[in-house]
Amino acid sequence: MEGWTRGMIIRLLEDRDWIATWRIIEPVFRAGETYPYSPDITENEAHGVWVEIPSATFVAIDESEDIVGTYYIKANQPGIGAHVCNCGYIVSEDARGKGVASEMCKHSQHEAVDRGFRAMQYNLVVATNQGAVRLWKKHGFEVIGTLPGAFRHQQLGYVDAYVMYKTLIT
Amino acid sequence: MEGWTRGMIIRLLEDRDWIATWRIIEPVFRAGETYPYSPDITENEAHGVWVEIPSATFVAIDESEDIVGTYYIKANQPGIGAHVCNCGYIVSEDARGKGVASEMCKHSQHEAVDRGFRAMQYNLVVATNQGAVRLWKKHGFEVIGTLPGAFRHQQLGYVDAYVMYKTLIT
Repeated sequence: MEGWTRGMIIRLLEDRDWIATWRIIEPVFRAGETYPYSPDITENEAHGVWVEIPSATFVAIDESEDIVGTYYIKANQPGIGAHVCNCGYIVSEDARGKGVASEMCKHSQHEAVDRGFRAMQYNLVVATNQGAVRLWKKHGFEVIGTLPGAFRHQQLGYVDAYVMYKTLIT
Repeated sequence: MEGWTRGMIIRLLEDRDWIATWRIIEPVFRAGETYPYSPDITENEAHGVWVEIPSATFVAIDESEDIVGTYYIKANQPGIGAHVCNCGYIVSEDARGKGVASEMCKHSQHEAVDRGFRAMQYNLVVATNQGAVRLWKKHGFEVIGTLPGAFRHQQLGYVDAYVMYKTLIT
């Protein structure tokens, strides 16, 4: 598993990567099971939230030079709350279970520290997304609380979501 | 105390209310002890976050027709997280301890339900702001978790902040 990701490169998204990136994130947004964006989001709006609003957006590229994942990083609050960052990660359907999300999570933590962030917060980890919850815990995040019914899952209706947090610099 | 607020009116902010509203929120933002906005925020930026971005902004007006408080309401997440709202409240320094925040909190909960929200979330209640924490608890909010060091208090340095939440419609 580590072997598979050994040849993987994570680098800043460039304009020419958007088509492949949209191909990865579109089905996830459309499904409405993990991210809060409207399942009817337009490509332009998605570009806004994934590329324009964040401080930076990255892509994970495998040995065949295919984009297999993407993540963004941004401040989670303005001003005197801006030392805590927020990230979102999406792995291509074909590349799941191969450690791509893990690599992106580790990369984002280094990136966060390099950018001067002191902690990372996930605001809305859908409780039914157990794989993600397990993975973030493995990478040092704690569930600091549960938001009852805060996510309207497109298959399951209102479900709980977790706020998860990791201190990076003490 | 209830008597004092009996003659109070809470209504939508109108353009002409901005000068008085800014006079109330400016010292709070400048102090950097309760809201994350930069203490150097400009008046234009403050108008953006308090009036333009929210779904609606209200003012509380006393019997002398002075604006003594203000709050905003907005969705806390996009799309399929947008059934949870977020509010921010500020009371004029002169009018503190007279029940204005309580009245605004109650008003905002009615307003939230009228607007179709099912829950209300405060994302960053500064732990040292004990009066606010006590007040929101009295109005049915729960501390669902603690964000360690998530707020850079201008007097105290990094302090914890709470995520607070209240289900309005079950």
